[in-house]
Amino acid sequence: MGDRERQIEHSWRTNASAWTSLVRSGQIESRRVATDKAIVDKITEHRPRNILDVGCGEGWLVRELIRQGLEAIGIDGSPALIESARQFGVGKFEVLSYAAIRSANILSDTTYDAIICNFSLLGESIDDVLLILSTLLSDQGKLFIQTLHPLVAFGEESYRDGWRTETFASFGSAFKEPMPWYFRTVGSWLNLVRSAGLTVIDCIEPVHPVTGKPLSLLLVCTNK
Amino acid sequence: MGDRERQIEHSWRTNASAWTSLVRSGQIESRRVATDKAIVDKITEHRPRNILDVGCGEGWLVRELIRQGLEAIGIDGSPALIESARQFGVGKFEVLSYAAIRSANILSDTTYDAIICNFSLLGESIDDVLLILSTLLSDQGKLFIQTLHPLVAFGEESYRDGWRTETFASFGSAFKEPMPWYFRTVGSWLNLVRSAGLTVIDCIEPVHPVTGKPLSLLLVCTNK
Repeated sequence: MGDRERQIEHSWRTNASAWTSLVRSGQIESRRVATDKAIVDKITEHRPRNILDVGCGEGWLVRELIRQGLEAIGIDGSPALIESARQFGVGKFEVLSYAAIRSANILSDTTYDAIICNFSLLGESIDDVLLILSTLLSDQGKLFIQTLHPLVAFGEESYRDGWRTETFASFGSAFKEPMPWYFRTVGSWLNLVRSAGLTVIDCIEPVHPVTGKPLSLLLVCTNK
Repeated sequence: MGDRERQIEHSWRTNASAWTSLVRSGQIESRRVATDKAIVDKITEHRPRNILDVGCGEGWLVRELIRQGLEAIGIDGSPALIESARQFGVGKFEVLSYAAIRSANILSDTTYDAIICNFSLLGESIDDVLLILSTLLSDQGKLFIQTLHPLVAFGEESYRDGWRTETFASFGSAFKEPMPWYFRTVGSWLNLVRSAGLTVIDCIEPVHPVTGKPLSLLLVCTNK
């Protein structure tokens, strides 16, 4: 794991409380107006018998899927976020970092009909994580990856893979630590998924209902 | 074929001379600085034994591939453009509209290692054309689709599939007729290709060397 990947994990420990408040108060507009519904609708469309939410954060998605009658568990590398996730007594949540997923495939006694990475693939070296997740899919299992849409995410910089910094400045002063994250182009996402032996079977791009700009890229993948 | 598809074909007859001058004088910046080289490099990388360029226009790409020692033929729905293409006496060119490709699969005695649609899939209903092209691929054959990058092509409009108009205004007064063209999002392209039974095995997004903005989306596809 590189320095920046370690910084990502550290930021989610430091900012856990600020993040929990932000998500639960619905202050992230793109999630409120489009991307939350997009991921929930796409997962429920496939009627998975069991679901693993990787990088579940404070757990909203697991709770929502359980509310809809599905079986879901969440894992996250931040103990503070998992503590937040457990507050409601709904759903099963475990602390598990990407490093732990990599080093010991401790999830391997079960396979999942749906594995979700909802805005949670933030590092540069994630090919091995994707490879391990692909082995955890059931025969008909789907991997759902939602990420900031490369069009809006690349902003004023070059449209090329590279590290960026999220300062959380637009979300007020509660965040104590910026978070590095790795920008990928559309092609880079597609080639990455393919190199993990996965095939994209559906691609959705939720747009902002007013501006018409794409907010996220949502890939549904299966093993080949 | 819809009215707009007919308008597309008509515009390439009317504008053939203006287009030929434009391409041969290298006045389309995106092609000059990035996208011409991208398609040539990607095709030659696969060392195809024979190549079909669908919507070849005035024929530059067929000539370039022949110059590099490859075997290539070009087809286009515009008789005037095919006449231009034949002027140099290099390469084989035939008039063949998309309607003709659809209605009678007259190409079917040969299969191709490479079929190219270089900025030539402009209509809305192209799923049947892709389906037919997929049957013309050899066992190891690849379909190369290059298109304006959706991230820059959608401009100020909503990021949603729909008809747009190319006025050619930025290319001077020689063009006599605007051309309708159908905008597709990234997801729409991917799902379209998939619905034709094709798998994307590589995705390249040439960027402008100065602005860093993506200029085109280049998909390399195989039969599943």
